[in-house]
Amino acid sequence: MRFLSYASEVSKKVENFIYDVVKGEPKILYDSALHYIRAGGKRIRPLLTVLSSRMCGGSEDIAIPGAAAVEVLHTFTLVHDDIIDRDEFRRGVPTVHKVWGTDMAIISGDLLYAYAYRCLIRSRDYGVPNDRILRALDALTNAAITVAEGQSLDMLLPSIDNVDTNMYIDMIRKKTAALFASSAAIGAILADGDCEAIEKLKESMINAGTAFQIRDDILGLVGDEKTLGKPIYSDIREGKMTILVIYTLNKVDESKKKRLRSVLGDRKASLHELSEAAEIIRSSGAVEYAESLAEQYAARAIEISRSIDSKDSEALHMFREVVEFMVKRNY
Amino acid sequence: MRFLSYASEVSKKVENFIYDVVKGEPKILYDSALHYIRAGGKRIRPLLTVLSSRMCGGSEDIAIPGAAAVEVLHTFTLVHDDIIDRDEFRRGVPTVHKVWGTDMAIISGDLLYAYAYRCLIRSRDYGVPNDRILRALDALTNAAITVAEGQSLDMLLPSIDNVDTNMYIDMIRKKTAALFASSAAIGAILADGDCEAIEKLKESMINAGTAFQIRDDILGLVGDEKTLGKPIYSDIREGKMTILVIYTLNKVDESKKKRLRSVLGDRKASLHELSEAAEIIRSSGAVEYAESLAEQYAARAIEISRSIDSKDSEALHMFREVVEFMVKRNY
Repeated sequence: MRFLSYASEVSKKVENFIYDVVKGEPKILYDSALHYIRAGGKRIRPLLTVLSSRMCGGSEDIAIPGAAAVEVLHTFTLVHDDIIDRDEFRRGVPTVHKVWGTDMAIISGDLLYAYAYRCLIRSRDYGVPNDRILRALDALTNAAITVAEGQSLDMLLPSIDNVDTNMYIDMIRKKTAALFASSAAIGAILADGDCEAIEKLKESMINAGTAFQIRDDILGLVGDEKTLGKPIYSDIREGKMTILVIYTLNKVDESKKKRLRSVLGDRKASLHELSEAAEIIRSSGAVEYAESLAEQYAARAIEISRSIDSKDSEALHMFREVVEFMVKRNY
Repeated sequence: MRFLSYASEVSKKVENFIYDVVKGEPKILYDSALHYIRAGGKRIRPLLTVLSSRMCGGSEDIAIPGAAAVEVLHTFTLVHDDIIDRDEFRRGVPTVHKVWGTDMAIISGDLLYAYAYRCLIRSRDYGVPNDRILRALDALTNAAITVAEGQSLDMLLPSIDNVDTNMYIDMIRKKTAALFASSAAIGAILADGDCEAIEKLKESMINAGTAFQIRDDILGLVGDEKTLGKPIYSDIREGKMTILVIYTLNKVDESKKKRLRSVLGDRKASLHELSEAAEIIRSSGAVEYAESLAEQYAARAIEISRSIDSKDSEALHMFREVVEFMVKRNY
């Protein structure tokens, strides 16, 4: 796809910007804060910021501080999420709290949070008017609030009886889709896009982000450890209420439900037990159900993206490619 | 002191503003986030924001969103610090992570962080021009970055051999004094104060905040459990490198040093062992040394505050009273 080489160009600029802004003492704090950024990553969110700016008539350059801000904010959420999920690997490297301990990981996340704002405020140096920067800061703040709400819902779902698909969708819209929507919105706002374009970009991303998270759930079950950069079945071990688990628990008989429930969230579960739980999920038809649900959100995202009135046809083309990639990715 | 009744007036306005802005779902997340704000507190930082605004010719009202922002940011740091320090009580109530668990406490802090920004951005509703709000956001961000750096230094000091007073002062300037300085700066910026006034307010607060933290260390050793709202000797149990410990370790003979070191950071230390360690500290002259060090910073803070050219003499008078309170408080 055409967007891939452009993505790596944007990625370079965004990384350079981040390394230029996020620096200080003590070194150990900054090393831990930059750990995931140095480990690579798809950088989809900053790409969306840049493409949205171009689609609304802005340049690539004026969107770089905003693109860096969403990547840094995203990285902060990963650091804290990994503590909460007790994840040990991310992007093929040990997680921040595994290397530097939980206390330092909490502070590293907090530091990144502040730097997300500092990056965006730097839009001033690119000649972006104050009112646009302030609106973009508002969008970043809304995303941060919504992501925290979504993360808390994710934590609460396992203790709720009879979780249904609607509760799950509400959770992932907040936890995952909201930041995609704000990533696009921030680019559009910095470029002074009109309200209609901004709303369409956000709506498209809410749907694409939802499909993205559903695919993430599927990949956690059927994906490949190496390309994922983290151990397989970790969602089951952590007791996550993924769409696959929710579907399976609502579908299978009492005996299978009991067996699945006994493994969910058991951090000491053997690989054999995890495989057995995964087999209960797979044989329930949950993967096919999730695939079709993701398809619906994907179709809606693509449909909305088609109706956007773009000032830059190349950017629009790549934006649609990114949407396709987000909803069909296999890593 | 005259400022006390005014502090409670400002406190009411700030709390109402916070409760109006910080609301949402799920309830458990918002209850945990608002836990310390509901538990009370001295609200010195928001008072400084309001007084600084008045001293620079602004009104009390235009400073309320900024005052709320610094209080919310301060509360976020308390939630995460308490996790790191394993503190169990704060403001007379169980800490957030003791009531809701560490995972929820991490997210509650993160939520508050974003709300600090939302509060400050609300200055728009009070007619404050965009450029001032953006500069105030910059000051808030600088404070957040500096506090994270200071917090990490606080964590690192116990593992460093021969910590000296300079390293300690650098740490508390960042961990504690920076937010006091930004609290005053934000009020002054929102009121369009001139550069000289802003610099003096900050410099006064860096000194007052330093004295404040030294007094905090002293109170942790000689203070009263009830008025402090937390258990005595917790600094020793947590192995904190307070100015008292640093002085003592550099002063006493090897045998006392060894005994003190064996109790520092031992979370299972008995009350007898803690008292013994406290006695080693007290008999070293550390308290007198710390008192005199605090006095020097206090004197400098007061001296600078005297040179500020204020547009509101009542506000200046109260500002000086607050400085005196900060550096002489016994709770």
